Amino acid sequence: MTHHSTDPRALVEATIAAIPHLDVEASAAAAGAMDGKVKPLRSLGELERLATRVAGIQGTSRPRVDHPAVIVCAADHGIARSGVSAYPQEVTALMLRGFAAGTAAVGVLAAQARARLVVADLGVLDPPVIAPGQHAVLDRRVRPGTANSLQEPAMTLAEAEQAVAHGIGLANLLIDDGADLVGLGEMGIGNTTTASALTAALLERDPARVTGPGTGVSGDALAAKVAAVDKVLRRHADVTDTWHVLASMGGLEIAALAGVVLGCAARQVPVVLDGFITTAAAVVAWKLAPTCVDAMIAGTLSPEPGHAVQLEALGLEPVLRLGMRLGEGSGAALAIPVVRSAVAVLADMGSFADLGLAQDTPTV
Amino acid sequence: MTHHSTDPRALVEATIAAIPHLDVEASAAAAGAMDGKVKPLRSLGELERLATRVAGIQGTSRPRVDHPAVIVCAADHGIARSGVSAYPQEVTALMLRGFAAGTAAVGVLAAQARARLVVADLGVLDPPVIAPGQHAVLDRRVRPGTANSLQEPAMTLAEAEQAVAHGIGLANLLIDDGADLVGLGEMGIGNTTTASALTAALLERDPARVTGPGTGVSGDALAAKVAAVDKVLRRHADVTDTWHVLASMGGLEIAALAGVVLGCAARQVPVVLDGFITTAAAVVAWKLAPTCVDAMIAGTLSPEPGHAVQLEALGLEPVLRLGMRLGEGSGAALAIPVVRSAVAVLADMGSFADLGLAQDTPTV
Repeated sequence: MTHHSTDPRALVEATIAAIPHLDVEASAAAAGAMDGKVKPLRSLGELERLATRVAGIQGTSRPRVDHPAVIVCAADHGIARSGVSAYPQEVTALMLRGFAAGTAAVGVLAAQARARLVVADLGVLDPPVIAPGQHAVLDRRVRPGTANSLQEPAMTLAEAEQAVAHGIGLANLLIDDGADLVGLGEMGIGNTTTASALTAALLERDPARVTGPGTGVSGDALAAKVAAVDKVLRRHADVTDTWHVLASMGGLEIAALAGVVLGCAARQVPVVLDGFITTAAAVVAWKLAPTCVDAMIAGTLSPEPGHAVQLEALGLEPVLRLGMRLGEGSGAALAIPVVRSAVAVLADMGSFADLGLAQDTPTV
Repeated sequence: MTHHSTDPRALVEATIAAIPHLDVEASAAAAGAMDGKVKPLRSLGELERLATRVAGIQGTSRPRVDHPAVIVCAADHGIARSGVSAYPQEVTALMLRGFAAGTAAVGVLAAQARARLVVADLGVLDPPVIAPGQHAVLDRRVRPGTANSLQEPAMTLAEAEQAVAHGIGLANLLIDDGADLVGLGEMGIGNTTTASALTAALLERDPARVTGPGTGVSGDALAAKVAAVDKVLRRHADVTDTWHVLASMGGLEIAALAGVVLGCAARQVPVVLDGFITTAAAVVAWKLAPTCVDAMIAGTLSPEPGHAVQLEALGLEPVLRLGMRLGEGSGAALAIPVVRSAVAVLADMGSFADLGLAQDTPTV
């Protein structure tokens, strides 16, 4: 189960086979305990739902979120050379340096959430040299960026499998180090275009409905981006199964994040999604192993139009609705304190039984 | 400026006179700094708005939320004896014991937010004895609960002034101890009815529109609650100015919380509102001193129907929309990590200037 596994596909299949359903007994026991707390029934709203969901994921009526982590996967995208982004590809490596320095948004927000931040390079074009004393960037490079999916498959099937396997390995690494909840983050210039193509293909949606401004394209540039997504879909129209869709039009960091979802789900660790790109990875994971959706928590709702489409398909309600569209894992990091507060209420709040009283009876 | 002030009205008037407008220069400077951060413009959405608002309130382009506090004010309501609540009045004192023990929802959530929790008794009927080693409940008792506003004024004008002055004193106490942001909380069986009456009277709304289930009344009991609010308004129809409305149909803890708002606003400390009851206090403060609204941040949106009406009147957008309707300060406490994360982004995130680059140019 390390990242040196010689058979990525076998690791993926074993991981998928290990994914349990939500533990409905643990969830019901937690809900019962929440109903016994000294408050009107259900008066903490979504906070109660979050606590019972984490209980169901972790398989215990006494869930814990003491050691959350945020994993940021980064890679470059060949399609960025076709002018779909407002930024050049060099910005991916520039941002990695910010992650290593702790000065990027996700670094600030993970620190506020008291969450460990781990960054992995799945295939940045020109990987930055990280100075000693900074956060390490884990080398999980599969290839130096994907090929341009407008012209050819973004990667081979074996590369896609390797990237997903790396994600599983990263999940296992974090969990072996104590992580009890994992937030997802990403960096890769061009990756909203990749995410739009994957979302349109896997959820069978019109490209125009799931393609948006990303980091900031509008007007003619946005129309060109929609046209590019449409062209990617037509270029790879013969491809239908999830693995081949991922290889043909996916991204290395998105494939790895799908692996993180699978790896966390298999080990009953909740996964907090960020915005449109990490949720594209969640859609890939869900297509590979539908049960893994039970381990997901939607951290935030992005204004990127495809995000609501993805969350609806996955049946998830976002914790935060703050109009954040930065990505990086910033929304996942900001949602973590809410999730851990929900779990803290379940763990630490007093009950009617503690006071020697019958459970609260009035209902809404 | 202590709670032993012999002239409450003079303290209130001096405090109101000291309330500044939002510092638009500080706010604009913070917005400029936020635009220079290494991210697409405005991509952190509401988080950016929160940071610039705190800058404007604190009057500095470098705002800090290092020492947040939550103040919970508690008191009993004579109208509770007319069957408007699902709970008997004794529950107010019972809940105070939970606050002192740290086992109430607001205690758990304030601890998660690393916020100091301070509880004050403004007039609980039968004040609990707090065991040594527990959180103290500050004695700011004005009278043992209000009179029943269905039959007579809830309190005298002098008592209302004393309660507001106590709130100002509590704000000053917290701020002198280092608080740089204050969340509001409340406890008092019957206080949603009181809050509905105040909201209907001060915002000139139909009682049916601003009266809801509170801790859990429905059906005939809810209809009776609406009728009670309507009767309170008719009983005191001759009263129009804010002070007399507050005295006739208000609550001691609500009056004190209005004072906390005024005291914080005067000292440029942001106030995070909780649900319907604390926002009724904010409406009282706003009616007494319209400028104080500039110091407010709406922490949460309660499903209690009058809350959206209040927030619209105050021109505030809630940070969280999680269906929380417990009160106590639980929603304010949960919103604090979001506000401090917003300020942390402004303080700690890297800028394009740090990288020797021109400011980001693409716009949405």
